[in-house]
Amino acid sequence: MNAIQLFNQIRQKQSFLCIGLDPEVNRLPVHLKDVEHPILAFNKNIIDATHDLVIAYKPNVAFYECLGTSGWQQLELTIQHIREHYPEILIIADAKRGDIGNTSKKYAETFFGHMQFDAVTVAPYMGADSVLPFLEYPGKWVVVLALTSNQGADDFQMLATTGHERLFETVIRKSSTWGNPDNMMYVAGATRASMLLKIREIIPDHFLLIPGVGAQGGDLEDVAKYGLNSRCGLIVNSSRAVIYADSSERFAAVARERAFEMQQQMKEILERRL
Amino acid sequence: MNAIQLFNQIRQKQSFLCIGLDPEVNRLPVHLKDVEHPILAFNKNIIDATHDLVIAYKPNVAFYECLGTSGWQQLELTIQHIREHYPEILIIADAKRGDIGNTSKKYAETFFGHMQFDAVTVAPYMGADSVLPFLEYPGKWVVVLALTSNQGADDFQMLATTGHERLFETVIRKSSTWGNPDNMMYVAGATRASMLLKIREIIPDHFLLIPGVGAQGGDLEDVAKYGLNSRCGLIVNSSRAVIYADSSERFAAVARERAFEMQQQMKEILERRL
Repeated sequence: MNAIQLFNQIRQKQSFLCIGLDPEVNRLPVHLKDVEHPILAFNKNIIDATHDLVIAYKPNVAFYECLGTSGWQQLELTIQHIREHYPEILIIADAKRGDIGNTSKKYAETFFGHMQFDAVTVAPYMGADSVLPFLEYPGKWVVVLALTSNQGADDFQMLATTGHERLFETVIRKSSTWGNPDNMMYVAGATRASMLLKIREIIPDHFLLIPGVGAQGGDLEDVAKYGLNSRCGLIVNSSRAVIYADSSERFAAVARERAFEMQQQMKEILERRL
Repeated sequence: MNAIQLFNQIRQKQSFLCIGLDPEVNRLPVHLKDVEHPILAFNKNIIDATHDLVIAYKPNVAFYECLGTSGWQQLELTIQHIREHYPEILIIADAKRGDIGNTSKKYAETFFGHMQFDAVTVAPYMGADSVLPFLEYPGKWVVVLALTSNQGADDFQMLATTGHERLFETVIRKSSTWGNPDNMMYVAGATRASMLLKIREIIPDHFLLIPGVGAQGGDLEDVAKYGLNSRCGLIVNSSRAVIYADSSERFAAVARERAFEMQQQMKEILERRL
């Protein structure tokens, strides 16, 4: 999927919402706990209830990996379900991988070859050869961590470097030369919306994946104010605020209500600003 | 396992060698390709042939993950084999994980709870809350990426920060306050042995995990010269140079020969310097 196809989906659905599929077994609705694949059943319900309101789903791999082989199986079946029924939707592996070249190549095989994700999040600390193997798959995306939404982002990402900028800016400036706006995106936390202005100075055209709206406290209006570009350029993720909005048998319907509220806000923003 | 137990193992075996268990299906000896679990069979042969020469094994998770559920199963069975037969040996998950707090907690559950690794490598880019959940397991270790052995290390790790040091130094200085030399180690590439001197100024007591000796070109004598401390403080990893030393039916015996050569060098270094 390229940037134009992604933008077309945004215009059709009047949404730039991504839902994070981060299911924890002990937070699932009681009635799902005894089915064969509880996580898969939960995901399918959420997906079927929200697919027309979102442009992307983002499973965080940690939540599947911690269940061992059963978790990986349910992750693969989740992707299959989206691919079969909603082929237009971008599927992002939130995996934050990154290793020396021959090892990153293996990770790229896993997520793009074996598992058919469209995009994968990658940590930049190990530099170019840890990212390049992911860029060898046409139509796939690398989402580089730039400025994350957690408190720990202050520890290193906000460090001043001698180039009179902060580390996350150097990361964006340098890594953006490794690919292009059709195969690279950046993670930019909604909890620091004003920093989006600095990011847009460096990469006006790239898509930004924005976590931290909702449970982590980020504000959608601010994100749009500083981050929107002429092709929208934003994918705003919400995980817990949507998928755990309710824990009864109505959980999927309530998740849809939350997603609908966000989509309506996004629709209004897109109409006003694009 | 604490630092004293690790040092005792080093003294007993006169070795600070770690073997990286990074098996690729298409590089396995032909006679193993048709067995039920080829990767597991390969690993078991390598392990049984080298266990008395090494203090640690380090499977890189990418090489298992890319095989899907079968890969994870063979990884778990590999760990089980080491645990059962060679319980003194440190097992490091080379996973380079790191995410926001509630997600890193899941990764810690995976590697320390579910899979019984002793240590896991973690990328520092997301800061304190991405590392702290791994430190909550008594007797387990976090191995933080500081200075890696690949070319891409120059891109960000070697950046000068305004604190008149390089990023990898800032990463070590700050992160070392989150734990102690009994639960934290650092990755420091052998391809930049002289940088070990700077690292030892900041953390004289921590163990360093040194990749890049062998296939990547690092030199053992230099590593010892700059990195050794009074409790050895070094775990030197070799992967490809040992496990792929031969591809015939004698592969494990030849791997032992390579490991023995390195152990003999280490023995000589330990006798001379400690």
